[in-house]
Amino acid sequence: MTRLWDKGTNLDERVLRYTAGEDHLLDARLVAYDVIASTAHVNMLRAQDLLSEQDHDAIVDGLSALGAEHAEGQWQIALEDEDAHTALESRLTDRIGAAGGRMHLGRSRNDQVLAALRLYLRDAVASLSEQTHDIVRALFALAGREAETALPGYTHMQQAMPSTVPLWCGGFASNLQDDADALQRCLARINVSPMGSAAGYGAPGIPIDRQHTADTLGFSAVQEPVTAVQLARGKAEATVCFELTLLLNDCARIASDLLLFYTQEFAYVSLPDSLTTGSSIMPQKRNPDVLELIRAAPASAQACLNECLGITAKLTSGYHRDLQRLKAPLFRCIDLTGDTLAILRAMLDGVAFIPDNIQMSDGLHAAERANTLVVNEGISFREAYRRVAQEYAKS
Amino acid sequence: MTRLWDKGTNLDERVLRYTAGEDHLLDARLVAYDVIASTAHVNMLRAQDLLSEQDHDAIVDGLSALGAEHAEGQWQIALEDEDAHTALESRLTDRIGAAGGRMHLGRSRNDQVLAALRLYLRDAVASLSEQTHDIVRALFALAGREAETALPGYTHMQQAMPSTVPLWCGGFASNLQDDADALQRCLARINVSPMGSAAGYGAPGIPIDRQHTADTLGFSAVQEPVTAVQLARGKAEATVCFELTLLLNDCARIASDLLLFYTQEFAYVSLPDSLTTGSSIMPQKRNPDVLELIRAAPASAQACLNECLGITAKLTSGYHRDLQRLKAPLFRCIDLTGDTLAILRAMLDGVAFIPDNIQMSDGLHAAERANTLVVNEGISFREAYRRVAQEYAKS
Amino acid sequence: MTRLWDKGTNLDERVLRYTAGEDHLLDARLVAYDVIASTAHVNMLRAQDLLSEQDHDAIVDGLSALGAEHAEGQWQIALEDEDAHTALESRLTDRIGAAGGRMHLGRSRNDQVLAALRLYLRDAVASLSEQTHDIVRALFALAGREAETALPGYTHMQQAMPSTVPLWCGGFASNLQDDADALQRCLARINVSPMGSAAGYGAPGIPIDRQHTADTLGFSAVQEPVTAVQLARGKAEATVCFELTLLLNDCARIASDLLLFYTQEFAYVSLPDSLTTGSSIMPQKRNPDVLELIRAAPASAQACLNECLGITAKLTSGYHRDLQRLKAPLFRCIDLTGDTLAILRAMLDGVAFIPDNIQMSDGLHAAERANTLVVNEGISFREAYRRVAQEYAKS
Amino acid sequence: MTRLWDKGTNLDERVLRYTAGEDHLLDARLVAYDVIASTAHVNMLRAQDLLSEQDHDAIVDGLSALGAEHAEGQWQIALEDEDAHTALESRLTDRIGAAGGRMHLGRSRNDQVLAALRLYLRDAVASLSEQTHDIVRALFALAGREAETALPGYTHMQQAMPSTVPLWCGGFASNLQDDADALQRCLARINVSPMGSAAGYGAPGIPIDRQHTADTLGFSAVQEPVTAVQLARGKAEATVCFELTLLLNDCARIASDLLLFYTQEFAYVSLPDSLTTGSSIMPQKRNPDVLELIRAAPASAQACLNECLGITAKLTSGYHRDLQRLKAPLFRCIDLTGDTLAILRAMLDGVAFIPDNIQMSDGLHAAERANTLVVNEGISFREAYRRVAQEYAKS
Repeated sequence: MTRLWDKGTNLDERVLRYTAGEDHLLDARLVAYDVIASTAHVNMLRAQDLLSEQDHDAIVDGLSALGAEHAEGQWQIALEDEDAHTALESRLTDRIGAAGGRMHLGRSRNDQVLAALRLYLRDAVASLSEQTHDIVRALFALAGREAETALPGYTHMQQAMPSTVPLWCGGFASNLQDDADALQRCLARINVSPMGSAAGYGAPGIPIDRQHTADTLGFSAVQEPVTAVQLARGKAEATVCFELTLLLNDCARIASDLLLFYTQEFAYVSLPDSLTTGSSIMPQKRNPDVLELIRAAPASAQACLNECLGITAKLTSGYHRDLQRLKAPLFRCIDLTGDTLAILRAMLDGVAFIPDNIQMSDGLHAAERANTLVVNEGISFREAYRRVAQEYAKS
Repeated sequence: MTRLWDKGTNLDERVLRYTAGEDHLLDARLVAYDVIASTAHVNMLRAQDLLSEQDHDAIVDGLSALGAEHAEGQWQIALEDEDAHTALESRLTDRIGAAGGRMHLGRSRNDQVLAALRLYLRDAVASLSEQTHDIVRALFALAGREAETALPGYTHMQQAMPSTVPLWCGGFASNLQDDADALQRCLARINVSPMGSAAGYGAPGIPIDRQHTADTLGFSAVQEPVTAVQLARGKAEATVCFELTLLLNDCARIASDLLLFYTQEFAYVSLPDSLTTGSSIMPQKRNPDVLELIRAAPASAQACLNECLGITAKLTSGYHRDLQRLKAPLFRCIDLTGDTLAILRAMLDGVAFIPDNIQMSDGLHAAERANTLVVNEGISFREAYRRVAQEYAKS
Repeated sequence: MTRLWDKGTNLDERVLRYTAGEDHLLDARLVAYDVIASTAHVNMLRAQDLLSEQDHDAIVDGLSALGAEHAEGQWQIALEDEDAHTALESRLTDRIGAAGGRMHLGRSRNDQVLAALRLYLRDAVASLSEQTHDIVRALFALAGREAETALPGYTHMQQAMPSTVPLWCGGFASNLQDDADALQRCLARINVSPMGSAAGYGAPGIPIDRQHTADTLGFSAVQEPVTAVQLARGKAEATVCFELTLLLNDCARIASDLLLFYTQEFAYVSLPDSLTTGSSIMPQKRNPDVLELIRAAPASAQACLNECLGITAKLTSGYHRDLQRLKAPLFRCIDLTGDTLAILRAMLDGVAFIPDNIQMSDGLHAAERANTLVVNEGISFREAYRRVAQEYAKS
Repeated sequence: MTRLWDKGTNLDERVLRYTAGEDHLLDARLVAYDVIASTAHVNMLRAQDLLSEQDHDAIVDGLSALGAEHAEGQWQIALEDEDAHTALESRLTDRIGAAGGRMHLGRSRNDQVLAALRLYLRDAVASLSEQTHDIVRALFALAGREAETALPGYTHMQQAMPSTVPLWCGGFASNLQDDADALQRCLARINVSPMGSAAGYGAPGIPIDRQHTADTLGFSAVQEPVTAVQLARGKAEATVCFELTLLLNDCARIASDLLLFYTQEFAYVSLPDSLTTGSSIMPQKRNPDVLELIRAAPASAQACLNECLGITAKLTSGYHRDLQRLKAPLFRCIDLTGDTLAILRAMLDGVAFIPDNIQMSDGLHAAERANTLVVNEGISFREAYRRVAQEYAKS
């Protein structure tokens, strides 16, 4: 296997392992997107007459076949391949010969990697957004099942004012809807085309058409000027991780509430047996492990966000290999979110409140009584407040 | 001075200091916004016939006068006031008597604090966005002054391909424009009305009109349901801190480049004397302290972001006093950004490149030569690459 | 007021504000330590015959008087002073004339700042460590008051096995003792002498004696070589912030438990009235604000830690002005911890458990029953576990 | 495969995947340590007469064989095993029958997991400490090879005072020695025995001997009381990640310096060909990717630290499943550090300075000249400073 930048120098195996890192594993998800982006690139080369029709067709067919075979598990990216892009190109050249070597004209691995990543992110964001809507629907379904269930409204973890299960569900649903909307807004940083920026300074000497590839791939705009592209590395990644941190924290707060409600002392909810686990030494227990792991999830997402922010901090302009380290936290954050949303949805489908156990303390209505005193007797709120406080102090 | 929640219990001074914290200092910027929000609230109470015209007018006039006097420095929030809101209400009652006590009907400090905060954030975001545009303009001005100045384009901190000062400016300008756009998108989380959610469960027993206050204050929507409001605490704050972190990192990367270019070994730029400082023991030096402090700024902003995220993590639903701790990092982040943008703009106005010192190495044109070989001779890029590499190995 | 590095260039007011930042406020706590370190420095200069006895005495007396006057509030550091060190030196020169200008021989502001900071940190760590021991004592006192009170032991927030209030107290006391021990270990990075490293490259041409100042100031060693000193900036700061984050999180977890136990649904504890606060619209409530603010505190400490780590990340060697930004998060973290420990101690002195409300569920003894079956009947734990599980499934 | 806590309920595959997570992969490194800890546990059970000699021997032999077979790759932990501990116990029971079920007496998975983890951490810390000493040695070797090479000493990235390559090496060596010492201090939190704390509340009904297992395993103390153990979860993990962050940042700062020195504009160093890589479109370039990846490493370590801190934040006392999420960042941080130290050492062995290119500007000696004026002419430093500054202004 020849790596693109191999000019004959013997390369230490350790260097390969350190520099390629986990890319051969991480990049599996990018193969299909590189096929799409590379195909768009050779279409443009053909349109600009920088590639013969024959070579173009051989490349397009070869990429398509390789993509299909990868999807079927017929090949994987090896450590020696270094990454998805080299893996594809070298296999293509093995398959179609010299024409494979013509695919790289007018681009660099820098814009190639970024194009595949952004296409992937576009899909990932859409998918997570849809899963978030699933949680919203599950919350509304729960509100429907518990339409009549009263619940204390808490402030400072103290019973404060009357609330209901539908209001509890609705508060979270509203915030998750906000998170899904914000995920869509990430597209402002994702859906711009890096293609043609090459290593960050364009493709001097070659009449490429950046708009052509941007249009083919459905990017909303060409990212201009070429020097903006590498400076933007990490911003889309961080934005996605940031929004997923907020989203997971909304999920975690659902979990925190349910964990509280599931204590023996509250006993306000039951959880489905299939979503609780047992103890290795306490036979009587059913543990809400799933909720605890959801509660812990935003700490991991926030770490991914910080990793992205830390990697790009203070760098001078232009591409740096540091940027490669962005992929691992980004993918980790996305996978964690997808898994968490899926399991939370299953959990919400099985949650039931236990109205008999729900205590609505007398004090919950104090504010309403003060309000009513104001409206009925025309006294000030402060005076009504003092009168109601005195009543409670006596009782 | 009587605090709103004082029911006669003697309160330890330490508790006041710990719970009020720095609020009496931090809240100075919120006084004007509380005047606006409180005025909108009493307008609504009047419209709903929950307040007499006489009381309404007394409150509105009183608030207006207190706001003006605060702006002129005639009074400050004292530690004993605890926060802006109590400070205003108690001064209002001192001034207009019992009517002051009628202002609080149908709201809680929770929605009151949040309304003032969001109005402030709306202005802060607009202001920082404008300052960001100033930097963009300063970069374009610099590009204009250095329209003909060539600059190496770097990858891996190595000279890679030909670039220019305008391209260097343009890359940053594009990213700062993106940051300014993103600041505007923060409004999706800022510009929704918390008013009428009271302590998080509405105002039972009082026919308030949430749409009325939202319209008066120019919020794009009422945040619904009431339980969504406190769950959303920290999300707008974190979003602003996140975007300011990205913005400051773009500024820091300008600083990193200039610090590199300002070394004696590069000597590609000169900085204005008024923006460099001297050394206490080395008389020959002019130090770029301002650029260094700009480079360090995103670390502080990122810390503010993490503080906001950490404060709300895992909390059960409903208001918690923990949320008070959000204000300090939020304001710190905003102030740091405003100061940094102002000083960076002054720096950019004074930067000059020194064309005589700028080294453009031969290798910068290697990629172009390889490209030209491909286009002219019809060989593959890989073959052209090998030929150019051999030429360089010989030279 | 002449700044040390003023060579006549007119300096923009904005630059002063941006570069000096909050130092004139932050540095108040460093004045006393600069007096000590500067006195040690001039003692060494005298011992090396680099300073006349007359000048030495004038400087020592002048510093001593200025330190005393600062402690009494007779002067403060002004923005124009820039920092504690310039403030002291310029006031000294005003007072004793030319001799004041001889104090700076053989040092730089870099080692001067660091010496004062480390002396301060040595005291701060000792003080916080002592406060931590106060909490340990308060926990043991609580354990003594509640020697007989049973408490469920929880895992997964579920009642798991029998525990007691003394065991609850003891677990936290053990961890706080560990935190106090770890604070002492911070001295390994704090208590080494930077003096004589000057700007980071020593004091060429001057026969200073680094061991002399280190001994006078009680540092355990001279930090060698001189180039190590500036590379170490931020490490002691981060270490202190890290340990305070762990310490505050142990405090926060005490708060989390008490907040849970203080819910109406648990009602396992009562809190003193003087340490709870009222609600502005719900007269019946006593809110545990203090505990909530303690729970939120480690998020702020962790942010300070991250700020310190981010500031020094990736810097090339040698002093950078970036390092000035370390002081604010460091002092913020220390002050937050001191305040939090003080208030937590007061809270623990007032906490009482309410044995009548504490539910000890039957299942708490399941593990013990399984264990007893094993010991008495010689069956395996797995078999005993299954038998006990069946009993519980039936009941 | 029966999981320990399986009581017959059909468990959703998704729940297994979500709750077991990556443990079956992560735990490979813990198998050997669980064998050691479990052997110590059954030794204690035998000594307390809680296990027959026959069962004891069967268990010890079985564990030993399973450990050896795992080391040889004859079996791996499967997802269905859930973790190392269940994998071992179920295989042991398959192999030796009912006696395998007697191993778990007097412990829980909570203390079992923690014991294996701490034994692993003890080794990991020793190994990373040794690797750090390797870097120190490599720096001293470089200092030896470049004993005569002068280098500018920088402050603010400006040439400030004369330095040398040995001083440059020595500053980093001193800091890395400090990091290695600090890694040893982590043992204060690692090397205490959790064994016998079981699920966090001891082993009621069974006369276990906690000191026995602690002594066998070389722990310096038994962690007391039992409730301290789970409260301490995450503290050792965070401490290790914190120290590794500082260590990696010291490595990253070496990389930052070398990346600066390796620019064409500086050209102060050469790097070995085997540790640089080529460019996919620029044939003339040799890129310092390895150094860039080292520079980025502390951002990842700091993220691991934050993940550990975030996971345990605010948790109530007792074990929570959240704690399982600690393993991934901890192992990631350790592996990253080991890889980075290994490659940095190889890099340092190949670095050479290029004395002909190193510019020592005149101004480097200004401070020394001012110092000499003071010593020779008896004028104050301030006056000498002004005179030297005037000389430079003229030249």
